[in-house]
Amino acid sequence: MTEAPKPPTKGSGRIVLSIDAMGGDLGPSVVVAGMARSAKINPALHFILHGPQDTLEKLVAKRKPLAGRVAFRDATDVVKMDDKPSQVMRSGKGTSMWSALESVREGEATVAVSCGNTGALMALSMIRLRKLPGVARPAIAVLWPSRNPQGFNIMLDVGADIRADASDLVQYALMGVSYARNGMGLKRPRIGLLNVGTEEHKGRAELKTAHEMIAALADRSQFDFVGFVEGSDIPGDNVDVVVTDGFTGNVALKTGEGTASLIGELLREAFRYTPLSRLASLLALTSLRRLRQRIDPRRVNGGVFLGLNGTVVKSHGAADATGISAAIKLAFELAQSGFSERLAARVALAAQTADEAVSDADQQQQQDKDQEANKA
Amino acid sequence: MTEAPKPPTKGSGRIVLSIDAMGGDLGPSVVVAGMARSAKINPALHFILHGPQDTLEKLVAKRKPLAGRVAFRDATDVVKMDDKPSQVMRSGKGTSMWSALESVREGEATVAVSCGNTGALMALSMIRLRKLPGVARPAIAVLWPSRNPQGFNIMLDVGADIRADASDLVQYALMGVSYARNGMGLKRPRIGLLNVGTEEHKGRAELKTAHEMIAALADRSQFDFVGFVEGSDIPGDNVDVVVTDGFTGNVALKTGEGTASLIGELLREAFRYTPLSRLASLLALTSLRRLRQRIDPRRVNGGVFLGLNGTVVKSHGAADATGISAAIKLAFELAQSGFSERLAARVALAAQTADEAVSDADQQQQQDKDQEANKA
Repeated sequence: MTEAPKPPTKGSGRIVLSIDAMGGDLGPSVVVAGMARSAKINPALHFILHGPQDTLEKLVAKRKPLAGRVAFRDATDVVKMDDKPSQVMRSGKGTSMWSALESVREGEATVAVSCGNTGALMALSMIRLRKLPGVARPAIAVLWPSRNPQGFNIMLDVGADIRADASDLVQYALMGVSYARNGMGLKRPRIGLLNVGTEEHKGRAELKTAHEMIAALADRSQFDFVGFVEGSDIPGDNVDVVVTDGFTGNVALKTGEGTASLIGELLREAFRYTPLSRLASLLALTSLRRLRQRIDPRRVNGGVFLGLNGTVVKSHGAADATGISAAIKLAFELAQSGFSERLAARVALAAQTADEAVSDADQQQQQDKDQEANKA
Repeated sequence: MTEAPKPPTKGSGRIVLSIDAMGGDLGPSVVVAGMARSAKINPALHFILHGPQDTLEKLVAKRKPLAGRVAFRDATDVVKMDDKPSQVMRSGKGTSMWSALESVREGEATVAVSCGNTGALMALSMIRLRKLPGVARPAIAVLWPSRNPQGFNIMLDVGADIRADASDLVQYALMGVSYARNGMGLKRPRIGLLNVGTEEHKGRAELKTAHEMIAALADRSQFDFVGFVEGSDIPGDNVDVVVTDGFTGNVALKTGEGTASLIGELLREAFRYTPLSRLASLLALTSLRRLRQRIDPRRVNGGVFLGLNGTVVKSHGAADATGISAAIKLAFELAQSGFSERLAARVALAAQTADEAVSDADQQQQQDKDQEANKA
C-alpha cells in the first residue's frame, strides 16, 4: 500500500477521487487512459486507484500526466457483470469495488467512480456508505441530452429501486434540485413529475400525492415545480429535472438509448445507399460528428448515486477512455462543489419541511398518523 | 342519411370502414384527403363517414377516387381534445365519434378509425362495443420502427389503462400474438415482457407471475416467449411483440418519440452549420428522406384498440393526409384478415388455457411450498 494523497483541504482546490479500475468491459487499461486524459487538463485532480496493484502500477507508469498523482490500494478480487448483488454483499470484501467505496467511507476521497456491475455497486454503497438520515430509497440520476441551454436534463431514479412511493418521489425531487444546482449551476431548477398526461387528475395515486407534496415544497426549497410531464418532455426545454420511479426511469432510459442507436444505424445505412449519398456523407462528416458529440452517451457518462453518505459515480460498463474521462469530470465537479454535504443538508432540512407539506397537502393522512401515534 | 355501402360479404373483397371525420387537429378536410389517397390505390375500400353531413359531402365531392364509395352519417357534435372521457360518456351521443363506433357496433362497418381524443375514444369504445368475454382490460397496441425484417415491432399496452396485473399482461401477450399474425403475417411471433433486466429474478412481483403464465401458454398458442426484455429491445430484432402495462408503455412510447424528434432537430441544425454542410445536406437529400420515411411516425400511424367486440384504429391527433391514409391502410388490413373474429376466438380459447396455466402455476407454487415445508 502506498501513501494516499492528502485529503482535500478547503480552498486548496485539490480533489481526490477514488477509482475502481476493474469490472468494466474493457479492463483497467482504458480506466487508466481515461484518468490520464482528465489529469492532463485538470491539475487539481488526484486519484486513489483500486485493483491488482502490480498491473495498475505498470499501466500508470506509462502515463506521464499521472506521475505523482496516484495512490494504489491493492485489491485482487473483481465484481463481475453477472454477479448477484446479494452475493457481492456477502463475499465482496476483497474486491476493487468494495475497496473504492472504502476510500470514500474513510474520507480519503470525496467521490468514488466505478464502471462495474450497477446492482452490486448500489448494494455495496448502501451497506458501506449507508443511506443519508431521512432517505428511504437512494436513487440513480443520469444526464439526458436535451434542448435546454445547459445541453442536458437530469432524470432520476433510473433503477436504484423498482418501487417508489409518494415520499420517495418527493426526496428524488429534492435530490434532483441539489444535483442540478451543484452539478449544472442552475439556481432555480425546474422539476417535473413523469406521468402519462399533464392533467392533474391523471395517473397513479402515489403520483397525485407526490404532486401535492412537491408543489408545497417548491417555494421554501427554491425550485420551480412544472407539475406532470410526459416521456416526450424528458429531452425537452420545459423542465430541468424529471422525477420518476426506478422501474419507469430505467425503461425510459433504455428506450431512449435504443431509439438513438437505431436512428444512428439507419442514418449510416442511408448514407451508404448510393455513390452520391456516400459523397454527401464525406462532406457532411463534420456535421455528423457534431451531432454525434451532442448526443454521444460517452460524453454524459455517469449515473450518480444520490442519498448516500458520499457520492458514487457509476460509469457505463462499456465506457472507453473518453467515457471514463467524462465520468471523472463529473465526479470532480460534484466533489469541488461540496455536493455530498450540500445534499445532506438539503435532505435534512427537507425531511422536516416535507412533514409539514404532507399536513398542508393531505389533512386526512396527517390525522391518521396522529391517531396511530396516539395508539402507540 | 344516405344508404350505407353493403357490409362485406365473405370473399367479395369489399371492405367498409367507419371514419370519424372530426376531432383531429387539422379538421375534416385532411381526413377526406387521406381517404381519397387510400381509395385511389385500393379499389376494395368503402367508407361510412361521420360528422356534419353538409360539410363532408362538399369535401368528398371534390375527390374523384371517392365517388360512389362514401355513405354519410350526420353528426353535428364533436369530441374535443380536452373533453374529459367521463363527460363524453354521459353526453357524447350526438358526436361523430359515437356515431363512428355505432357503425361497427351494428355491423355496417368492420373497423372504425378516429383521430380524436384517445381517452374519450377508449371510454366510448368500452361502453358501446363492450369488452370481449374474458378480457378484463382492453389495450392499445402501436407499431414501433425496428430492426426486424417486417420493419416494425408491436408494443402494448401504451395507455388504455395505467394498471395491469399478471393476468392482464397474459391477455396482452395473446392479443399481441393475434395482431402480429393478422396485421404483420408473422406465423410464430416472438413475445417479450418489458422489465428492467432480463434475469428471471428481477422486477415487480406481477411480472414474475406473468412470466410463468405466458411461458406456459407459448406452445399451445403457437408463439415463442423470449422472456424479459428491456427498453433497448423495443426497436430490436430479438422480439416482435413487447408486452407491458399502459403506464410504462405510454412513457416508453413518448420517450421514443421525443428522442427521435430531438435527434431530427439536431440533425437539421448540424447540416445548417456551414456552407459545406449545407451543400452536403443537398446531396444527402434522398438519403435523409429515406431515413425519415423509415422512422416517420406518420407511416406507422394508428394505435389499435384490442380486446373489444370490434376493432378501433386510433390515428394520431395531428395526423395529416399521409397519416390518415396510413391508419386507413392498417384498418383495411385488419378488416380483411378477419382480425376481430380471430382475436375473439383466440381470447376465448386462451381464457380457458390461461385458467389451466394459472392452476398449473398455482400447483407448482403449492408443490414448492410443500417441499419447503417438508425441508423445514
